[in-house]
This record gives sequence, C-alpha cells and structure tokens, in this order.
Amino acid sequence: MTNYPHFGFDITYKSPNSRARTGVLKTPHGDIETPNFIFCGTKATVKSVLPDDLKRARTDIILANTYHLMLQPGADIIEKMGGLHKFMNWNGPMLTDSGGYQIFAMGFGSVSNEIKGSGTRYKDKSLLKITEEGAHFRAYTDGHKVFLTPEKAMKIQRQLGPDLVVQLDECTPFHASRDYTARAMMMSRRWGDRCLTEFMAHNDGKQATYGTVSGGVYEDLRKQSAEANAERDFFAVAIADCLGNSKEQMYDVVAFTMPHVHPDRPVHLLGIGGIGDILTQVRQGIDTFDCVSPTRIARHGWALKKGAPKERLNLRNAEYRENPDPIDADCECHTCENYSTAYLHHMFKAKEFVGMQLVSIHNIYTMNRLMREVREAIRTETLDQLHKEWCPE
Amino acid sequence: MTNYPHFGFDITYKSPNSRARTGVLKTPHGDIETPNFIFCGTKATVKSVLPDDLKRARTDIILANTYHLMLQPGADIIEKMGGLHKFMNWNGPMLTDSGGYQIFAMGFGSVSNEIKGSGTRYKDKSLLKITEEGAHFRAYTDGHKVFLTPEKAMKIQRQLGPDLVVQLDECTPFHASRDYTARAMMMSRRWGDRCLTEFMAHNDGKQATYGTVSGGVYEDLRKQSAEANAERDFFAVAIADCLGNSKEQMYDVVAFTMPHVHPDRPVHLLGIGGIGDILTQVRQGIDTFDCVSPTRIARHGWALKKGAPKERLNLRNAEYRENPDPIDADCECHTCENYSTAYLHHMFKAKEFVGMQLVSIHNIYTMNRLMREVREAIRTETLDQLHKEWCPE
Repeated sequence: MTNYPHFGFDITYKSPNSRARTGVLKTPHGDIETPNFIFCGTKATVKSVLPDDLKRARTDIILANTYHLMLQPGADIIEKMGGLHKFMNWNGPMLTDSGGYQIFAMGFGSVSNEIKGSGTRYKDKSLLKITEEGAHFRAYTDGHKVFLTPEKAMKIQRQLGPDLVVQLDECTPFHASRDYTARAMMMSRRWGDRCLTEFMAHNDGKQATYGTVSGGVYEDLRKQSAEANAERDFFAVAIADCLGNSKEQMYDVVAFTMPHVHPDRPVHLLGIGGIGDILTQVRQGIDTFDCVSPTRIARHGWALKKGAPKERLNLRNAEYRENPDPIDADCECHTCENYSTAYLHHMFKAKEFVGMQLVSIHNIYTMNRLMREVREAIRTETLDQLHKEWCPE
Repeated sequence: MTNYPHFGFDITYKSPNSRARTGVLKTPHGDIETPNFIFCGTKATVKSVLPDDLKRARTDIILANTYHLMLQPGADIIEKMGGLHKFMNWNGPMLTDSGGYQIFAMGFGSVSNEIKGSGTRYKDKSLLKITEEGAHFRAYTDGHKVFLTPEKAMKIQRQLGPDLVVQLDECTPFHASRDYTARAMMMSRRWGDRCLTEFMAHNDGKQATYGTVSGGVYEDLRKQSAEANAERDFFAVAIADCLGNSKEQMYDVVAFTMPHVHPDRPVHLLGIGGIGDILTQVRQGIDTFDCVSPTRIARHGWALKKGAPKERLNLRNAEYRENPDPIDADCECHTCENYSTAYLHHMFKAKEFVGMQLVSIHNIYTMNRLMREVREAIRTETLDQLHKEWCPE
C-alpha cells in the first residue's frame, strides 16, 4: 500500500471454519492485535477515565468524534495544541470518525435510535439539508449553522491528527426507502472519492483512511458498495449506515456484506459493542469494533461480567449493599483488585464520581480481556466454547 | 501517652519567633510530617480522585465524615467490610470527625454559613433538638429521625476504624449569644468526657482521640475550654466551634486560643484551608488543617496556583481557550506534566468529569506542595518570604 507507508495490516491467522481471523494493525502510534475494541473518547476524553487508567486497563486503541470536536473546542485549536494525541495525552493508536454519524443521527431527533433502527418517526431536529455538496446542520452546542463537506471532514480530521480517519458518508435511517438508501449509497461513494482525493492531496504518511460500506439493509446495495469500496485505495473498511432494527437483521447485514469486502484490509464495524455481538461478528471477519456502551453503562452502575445474565450486573441493586466480593473474582482490573461491590454500590447511592470511574475502568478492562480471549479462541478454534463462557444463556 | 501506645507526636523544630513548629504525627497507618493538610473524603471518597492518584499527588492523610457515612452506607456495613481503610482502598493515616459539625451546620439551614459566621438568620432545617443527652436531627438522605450521642459518635467512629477520631461537640452559630455559647461549651466539655469514657472502655490501641476546643469568639470561653481540654487525656486537640465571621476574627480566635492549648499535642484547625490562612495559622502553632475547598473549587474549574491573584485561576475563562501552557509550569503534578490549560478549559466547556479529576489532582498536589514548603520554611525561618511567594498581593 504505497499511499500508506507507515501503516499495515498483517493477517496472522485465518480460520478454516468461518471468516474469523487474527491480525496486526500497524499505525505510527503503535501496533494493535485484532480483533480489538476501540473505546470512545468522544470529546477528547474517554468519559471519566484518564489515559493512564486506560493503559492500566490494557487499552490498545481509542477514537474521538469529529462532530463533537469540530464544534468544541474546534479543530483549529486542537491543531494549534499539537493534535489530539498531545491534547488529550493519549500516545497510542487513535481513530476519528467523519462526523457524519452524529450529524445524521442527531438530525433524526436522537443520537442513534433511527440509524440503529428502533423505528421512531423521522423528526428533523438539527439536520437542515443534505445536498450533493455536503450536509447543512445546526451545531448541538449553540445552534449555529454548519456546513460539512467531504473535503472539510478530511481537513478537520487532518487537523485533529489521529492515525486513522474515516470518509464522510450519509447514514440513512431505518425507515428510509430502498430508493432513498440506494441514492444515499451512491452519493456516499462519490463523497468517498472526494475524501480520497482530498486525503491524497495532503497525505504525509501520518494518517490512513477508512472507506465506508453503506446500503442499509439491502443485500444488493451492500454488495455494490463493498465492491466499489474495494476498488478504491482506502487503507481499511468501515461497515456503516443502518444495520437494521434487530440483532438478527444486523447479523444478516454483516453476513451478506462481508463476502464482498476487500479481503486484505482491516474491517471496522461501527457502533457495535455488545459482548455477544462481538463474539458473533468476529466470525464474519470483523477486525475492530467501537461502542460507547462499556463506559456509558458504567456511569449508570452496570458492570460487565463474563458469564453474567445479559452480560452485566446492576451494582445499584440492594443485593450488593453488604457484598464484600469484587465485581468479578477472576478479573485482574484495578477495581476488582481493590474494591468490593459494597463500596461500588455505596458510590452510586452517594452519587460519587469515583463509582463511575471505577466501573468504567472495570468495563474497559473487561472488554480488553474479552478481545484477548477472542483472539486466542480464534487461533485455537474455540470460539464456540468462549461464546458459551461469556454468554451462557 | 500510655492510652495511645501506637500513636505519637514528636515536635522536631520550634520557632523562636512564633508558635510555628514542625513535627511528626505517628499513627498505625504511617507517620506524617506536620504542618500538613488533611483532604476531605466525605462519603468515603475524595470526590473524583482515586486513592492511587491521591498518593501520586503526594497526599499523606485524608479524613471521612461520620455524619455522611453513618447515614449512607451506615457504620455497620463499613465495619462488616473491614473498616474504612479497606472499604475505600486508602492505607494511609485517616481521621473521621464526630458528625457534630454537619448536624449543627445543616441544622442551621446550610452546610457552613452559620458556623463560619456569614450571618444569615437561624433557620432550623434538620436539627430537631439538642439535649444534654445528645442531638436529635433528621437524616439528609431521607429525613428519618436520628439521635446522636457522644457515646454513639465514638461507637460509630470505632466501627468506621480510622486512626484518628474526634469527640462530639455542639457547634454554635455566629449569632449565638455569649450565654448560649458558654452553656454549649460546658456541655461540649461534658460530651468530651463521655466520649473519652466510651473510647477508653474499648481502646484497643488502634485509634486516638481529638478533644475539641470551643467557646466561639469569646476569649475567656476559649481559654477555659482549652485548659479543660489540656487536663483530659485526649491524644490531640481540634480547634472547633464558630471561628467568627471574618478572616480577621478567625485569626484572633486562633491567636487567643493557642496559648492555652496543650503544648505537646498535635493541634488541628477544623475546616480551614485557604493558602493564606494556612500560612498565617501555622505561625500560631496549628499542625493540621482540613477543608473541602481544594477539591470543591477544582470541580468548578478553579485551579490553585502559587502566586496567583486570590490564590487561583479560573480555567473556564476564555483566555485559556488556546493556551498551550500547563496551570503552573513549576508544578510537577500529573496534570501539569501532561495537560495544557486549553485542554482543561475544553473539559469544563464540554462538562467532562475528567476536567474535575485533573484539576482536583492538581489542587491536591498544590496543597501538598504548599505544606512541604511550609515545613521547610518553618525550619529555615523563611515563612514571611514563602507567604509573599504564595500570596503576593
């Protein structure tokens, strides 16, 4: 990949039984083993967890959101401060998204219900107009009008300075018609070309680009999009756009899309982070995942646990009031090694930030542990067994 | 001090020019040099800062509040969980107060305005009745009625298990008459005796008791209280009760009280933590201070800084928007070594917890740095110079 001299993706194992694989994704800020999980540092911070604690929880890679950062503090300021790595004190691999997801998701009246397919009706809250040129929307911060184009999305990500950047695309809501989704997919392809042109004009080797595969829940559109994506000189692939309104449909979309995706490029599945989902989707060849869920649920007192019903415990439950045990006796995270669930329960009852910090640290560690075990299980062909251990129901 | 075999207080230097002194306060969980600052871990956490970060910020000693903990999660639970040290993962020296301050302060309608003398009128919000036996009040958590006696205050602190405990006393509001303050002081003395009796009946050597000196702003009452305190077998002294309604009056109260305090016991000044106040009060022989201020102001974006106007910077000010410098280029805290004020400004604009964490860490480090410099300045008789460096106005 001559356009990406400082990046690489080595596939280290391919399962003969599924599309599952292990690999090493190389970036200027370090290599990560795949499959792996990318933690959301939306506004230049993984909420309530400092970078040192992320590392102690064995985090390999994080992302930040272009949409939020372009509005506050602004890409110019982050560039002046030396880029996102320095600004937020994270010196490992980092990705930013294009800003598109939030523009369209917030435009539909809530952050993700529509694109994730929960089926509420289209309510245009902040998205003003989508044209071939780009997207007009109102800023979530103060309502001022913003116009984002593919070129601007790339420029902003260049200013932010992460290792991995993503093309701008249009995210369609679940209720969108096949015709609308097809037109959006084609426009996203053209936007992808404009992004690549803009990217290559300034390519200094420090960043690599993900092209997105869209097409909603329509198999032929996904196939077209994946094939067009594979023909272009993107470094990697992000499975984007609406993935349906149920887990089953999401599994189907990924299953019928993946055979058409470039086989040698790392593949990211945007916004998916359930433990069961990850264990299912790595079989389709997904290499990286991201989701706000591990840290978001932590802030509400939910702790991820291997083998727990629905993957998690509710630490606010009265049963933890006098429980001297850690969340997970087999977990080696800072939280489980030093704190009882009684203490964590008390922190949530007392509305103390430290509760959110400690459970976030545990959930991050647990996701990283999951991914280590997933990689090992792929190599040893024991994914079925591992799936039952994490999700026994 | 035969009743306190595992505790000690060695005075290592006495200034010939003032009452200033340095010392070593010995507890079962370690020794601390004095003068020192005790950070408030009100509900079994120093708000938004984990114990590892407290240690990295060179913290020697913390406190927790009996009033809050007796109500949530309850002393029984903390005892079952192995005591406060284990519960909150702090293995250094620790103090708890008696619960009295919050009962009376909240009883007067706000946490501390009355006792600190801001002069608002007496509004009985939660304090129901004070009798010779004890204090009846309503819990801040759910309004249920609670009755706290001197014996219960000591029992609860025994269950909580810190190194240093404090007798129950009545805190009088600033508007209280001389007669009322005199009667309260005499009752607090009797409560102190009951506390000592209760303490000694269960003394296993793991804890040591502070007796309080009260008497409001009245010199003769303070003298009587200090002398009575010195005659009793307390390990240490806490200057309690109303300290007036201005800094000048607080300075006066401490100045006319200290000559009557037991000269060989460590002296704690309750609830005072301004940088200028500390630099002034160590000259009166105060050995330890506590205040919620360093971490409370941090959560609102105020960073302590040596030599800054009013001792601090407001990181929410627009002037920090593009400022690549740390809070204090001479500060070696984790925050100053890794983050710009532009980042901290952004964290507060974006309402991110990490901003509170990072500024709390800086403020804690700064208070610990202040206390190290104070001890050195006492030993080298350069307190005046140090005072000017920290508070140049």
